Amino acid sequence: MTPPTQPIGPVLPRATERLAVRPLGLREVELTGGFWAEWQRLNREVTMPHALGWLERDGSVDNLRRIRGADRTGPHRGFWFSDSDVYKVLEGLSWEMGRAASTELAAAAQDLIDVVREAQEDDGYLNSFVQGGHEVRWDHLTTSHELYCIGHLIQGAIAHKRGTGNDDLLAVARRAADCLVREFAGNRRKDTDGHPEIEMALVELYRETGQQSYLDLAQQLVDVRGHGVLDPRGHFDSAYYQDSIPVRQQTTVVGHAVRAVYLLSGVVDLFLETGEQALLDSALRQYESLMATKLYLTGAVGSRFEGEAFGEEYELPQDLVYGETCATIGCIMLYWRLLLATGQSRFADAIERSLFNLLAGSTSLERNAFFYNNPAQRRVARPAAPTDTRPQRAEAPGTRPPWFECACCPPNIMRTIASLGAYLATYTDAGVQLHQYAPATVAPGNGVEFTVDTRYPLDGTVTVTVTGTPTEPWTLSLRIPDWCRGATVTVNGGALEAAVPGERGYLDLERTWQVGDVVSLSMPMPLRLTVPHPAADAIRGTVAIERGPIVYCLESPDQPDGVDLNRVELLVDEPLNEEVRDILGQRVVVAVAQGYARDDSGWSTSGWATVGEEPVSGGRDFPLTAIPYYLWANRGPSVMRVFVPARTR
Amino acid sequence: MTPPTQPIGPVLPRATERLAVRPLGLREVELTGGFWAEWQRLNREVTMPHALGWLERDGSVDNLRRIRGADRTGPHRGFWFSDSDVYKVLEGLSWEMGRAASTELAAAAQDLIDVVREAQEDDGYLNSFVQGGHEVRWDHLTTSHELYCIGHLIQGAIAHKRGTGNDDLLAVARRAADCLVREFAGNRRKDTDGHPEIEMALVELYRETGQQSYLDLAQQLVDVRGHGVLDPRGHFDSAYYQDSIPVRQQTTVVGHAVRAVYLLSGVVDLFLETGEQALLDSALRQYESLMATKLYLTGAVGSRFEGEAFGEEYELPQDLVYGETCATIGCIMLYWRLLLATGQSRFADAIERSLFNLLAGSTSLERNAFFYNNPAQRRVARPAAPTDTRPQRAEAPGTRPPWFECACCPPNIMRTIASLGAYLATYTDAGVQLHQYAPATVAPGNGVEFTVDTRYPLDGTVTVTVTGTPTEPWTLSLRIPDWCRGATVTVNGGALEAAVPGERGYLDLERTWQVGDVVSLSMPMPLRLTVPHPAADAIRGTVAIERGPIVYCLESPDQPDGVDLNRVELLVDEPLNEEVRDILGQRVVVAVAQGYARDDSGWSTSGWATVGEEPVSGGRDFPLTAIPYYLWANRGPSVMRVFVPARTR
Repeated sequence: MTPPTQPIGPVLPRATERLAVRPLGLREVELTGGFWAEWQRLNREVTMPHALGWLERDGSVDNLRRIRGADRTGPHRGFWFSDSDVYKVLEGLSWEMGRAASTELAAAAQDLIDVVREAQEDDGYLNSFVQGGHEVRWDHLTTSHELYCIGHLIQGAIAHKRGTGNDDLLAVARRAADCLVREFAGNRRKDTDGHPEIEMALVELYRETGQQSYLDLAQQLVDVRGHGVLDPRGHFDSAYYQDSIPVRQQTTVVGHAVRAVYLLSGVVDLFLETGEQALLDSALRQYESLMATKLYLTGAVGSRFEGEAFGEEYELPQDLVYGETCATIGCIMLYWRLLLATGQSRFADAIERSLFNLLAGSTSLERNAFFYNNPAQRRVARPAAPTDTRPQRAEAPGTRPPWFECACCPPNIMRTIASLGAYLATYTDAGVQLHQYAPATVAPGNGVEFTVDTRYPLDGTVTVTVTGTPTEPWTLSLRIPDWCRGATVTVNGGALEAAVPGERGYLDLERTWQVGDVVSLSMPMPLRLTVPHPAADAIRGTVAIERGPIVYCLESPDQPDGVDLNRVELLVDEPLNEEVRDILGQRVVVAVAQGYARDDSGWSTSGWATVGEEPVSGGRDFPLTAIPYYLWANRGPSVMRVFVPARTR
Repeated sequence: MTPPTQPIGPVLPRATERLAVRPLGLREVELTGGFWAEWQRLNREVTMPHALGWLERDGSVDNLRRIRGADRTGPHRGFWFSDSDVYKVLEGLSWEMGRAASTELAAAAQDLIDVVREAQEDDGYLNSFVQGGHEVRWDHLTTSHELYCIGHLIQGAIAHKRGTGNDDLLAVARRAADCLVREFAGNRRKDTDGHPEIEMALVELYRETGQQSYLDLAQQLVDVRGHGVLDPRGHFDSAYYQDSIPVRQQTTVVGHAVRAVYLLSGVVDLFLETGEQALLDSALRQYESLMATKLYLTGAVGSRFEGEAFGEEYELPQDLVYGETCATIGCIMLYWRLLLATGQSRFADAIERSLFNLLAGSTSLERNAFFYNNPAQRRVARPAAPTDTRPQRAEAPGTRPPWFECACCPPNIMRTIASLGAYLATYTDAGVQLHQYAPATVAPGNGVEFTVDTRYPLDGTVTVTVTGTPTEPWTLSLRIPDWCRGATVTVNGGALEAAVPGERGYLDLERTWQVGDVVSLSMPMPLRLTVPHPAADAIRGTVAIERGPIVYCLESPDQPDGVDLNRVELLVDEPLNEEVRDILGQRVVVAVAQGYARDDSGWSTSGWATVGEEPVSGGRDFPLTAIPYYLWANRGPSVMRVFVPARTR
């Protein structure tokens, strides 16, 4: 099949020979209804004006504006990398305009672009904190975030170019990138930024412009890392800065979680363009270690508050997990690149887990408040977040604050949601692959067109209707999720057949399609219990409830009066019952299990007992109600847990 | 019985009517051999010269020296509260001289005292960071530690006065305290220091001097706290600063652990002098909450790195626990004051647990290297600590560093060990109470004299020989530890009788004693298994090994090759066997249990599984060897755990 026109979306490799599947854009794949389309609507109507307001209110735009004014060296407001928030908001606006034009968003973006362009030095350098005299250019790369900010500028600029066709911001980004090339390229400098991000940005700028020096610099900046080129300071070590082990030798994700997965995304980007197998091997090795030993059921990554970092294998505290929203977004970036490189469904499975659980839970249902950290257990209801001021970042309040002093997460969510269509489907010469299930139209531009109808994840039925087709045969590939057992399929109402996935994990339906052909995939979606790895100390002896891609949690508002979620157990031999309920306007399946509310009053004086003398804990049965994790903390401060101690009669 | 002469030791209440038992000093109770006496010897010979060297090397003394020099406003080295390290070292030297005079220690102390006196302002103010111009006096009490440092000055000065009879440092401390009184007393200021410490210091200064204004100011500084008088900054909240709830209303320990237990120590001190029952009630309530829900088996407190803080109830991570050495030392201070107020053995039990486990493990066996944080699990061996440089504080390396930039813990250990004799025994009109078991001589000065002979905790036999006695009858009270079952006693080789504790928890032997009378208390000390509270998520399904007061751990050097302590279980139905071994010169009882080394290779790709589809983990039996926790990390970097998953056949 012939390729589509140049898509509007992130991650468009220039070299196509290493793409197992090829990306589509926001015009080829449109979300037409359901959970994600509704979020996209609110992202456009609520989150974007909200973010633009906060960028002004928190001084991030002013920090850039000041550079061309009389008070250039006035005080910088917020963190020294606040420029990146502006660029990420611009990226979000741009993908959104790529989805559907908007004069309001275009005007807002143009205003920001004018400020950014005005702030740029003649030689292309751009960083309001450094230009304001608060730091010396290139002098403290370990912590200065100068390349990190330029990376976000580049990503924002590419999105703006692709989303609107306008070159203004791309010109700024190219001048900044050229300034980097002059400073760093050809190993003129041996170091790099303490926070990865520039790597994937430079690869993508190479893709957009064809300029080899950007790719070469990305390669250099990946190569130098891990050789101790950064100066660790304070109490963060070189692992925190992703500088402890060269990427080709690294075996697992370590250090600051966002930095680790941003770097790995750039590493896979580099592989896709250069074909260096050692880079893909390292990324796959680290991905597999992450999946097996460091991933939370919700898709959270990064166990530790200290250093916002990955912990050791199976170090998975549920209450004190850092679980930064940006880290899971970085994982989605990584998983997507690995999916492009391999075509394997396991990466789409990982994206699905991240989207429906951590990412969905990171944001209030009104889409104007956000979690920076995403716990999997909250023992005591914490005070509600302020609604009109911004905490720094890690206070982990009882509800979602509207913004943060370190405002990386909200614009990251914004750009992800606006570009989500690009993660739904891909194509190859042989056909089209559907990775995520949501109501959508898919029209790659190669003659294939189809619609997807589904109430997923409310149930597991997905109907694909062919609305356009070439005359030659092609293959429709439908992901069979890793959680799914016993999927079946019918074509045009014919015989029910087992939907058996091929080796990449997709049900591959190859035929000469006709307009009007209907494929109905049915994925049974019973409630199920999930047990942790026996080495996961923090959740030994517990189970979690899942259904399809949805991880459930127990939240205090759903339990009977007097039940303390810190002292409940789940009777694992009793049936789990589904109930469809409306919670806060969301039609969801709720799980009702047989719970046991333990009475620990015999343990009044000590936190332990000698074996043989343990107090007997009595208790009583109660109906334990679990809701999708992503809904938690939308009804005020609450107690919550994902994993529950298991009880057998 | 008549009271002894004025003892040399901490916590000597002026009002005696509320003392259930009355303290003795370092001359009335002398440790004569065994574990603690040997540590006292090394504390004097190794730790003290080591500390004096580091105080010079890290600039703490120079910071004070500079105040009277030409470079008064030169850069302050180390943390802004480094003065307190000097004062705590002085306190340690002073108790040590109180134990036994030393011309070397006296000269070193006098040198430091001269520097401190020289640095003091004419009006009594003293803080080298503020005097050096790096902060404005009294302007940022939330974080400045000005009263905290003066508190340590006062404690050091009282120790020096009591330990040596010399008034020099006490005069400095009184001038500083008078300066505080002028600034704060009579509610002239409504705020206080963000870090409690001054409260117990001022009460003790009142005890030493009889000056009522010191006690009144201590009362004021306790009363203002909890009313939001401090300005929280950064991302620490008012609970961190012990300013969220007035002490009389507080129900549990919250916030920064050291601050919480230092404050409570001052609160009990205040009760002892003023008799305000609400203060004791609050301290007991908070103590009971701590014991039941927030204490680690090792005596560690403070679950969280973030804010060095107490967590919620049963939030007891074993690997990422902060467990600061100073916090447990602060607990010992609190437990001791509660013991004086109540005479109940549970407080001596808590001291014993803290001493033999966390405190003993905080320090290398050479007594020249220290842990700031004390984990109860180490999943992966970390790099050895530097031996000649000082980390900041919380890096938690694989072995103990020689010093810290934030050097609060080593001098705190030093002063505790030097004054340890004062925690062994007390007296009342009716007799003498023995709280801790170690070879010692006890001679309160009221005619009673006895020696204690024991190999405790190697075994549980304690022999008390009366070496002096009044003619009238008196009661010898011997603590029956909470861990002890089936204690027996003989007097002068007579009939073996059950050693039944009275309501305060002591075996009370009242008789007309004769010189040469011998009491032999025998406390069976079998290895035992301990299970955690069912709400302690981090250790659900696990057991720990204990023997007497000693908590055991599994450390990698003691296990067979190829055994990964992250994948072992303990067969709880099999016997535990004792073996006496010499480890690093320590004669200890080692526990050998039936272990099971799990093979989790079936779990290669995911950290969880659906119930019904779990991979079967195979494995093999192996002899699992456990050593006293305090010995860990003395043989190089290692893997270690206290709680082990339990397995039944």
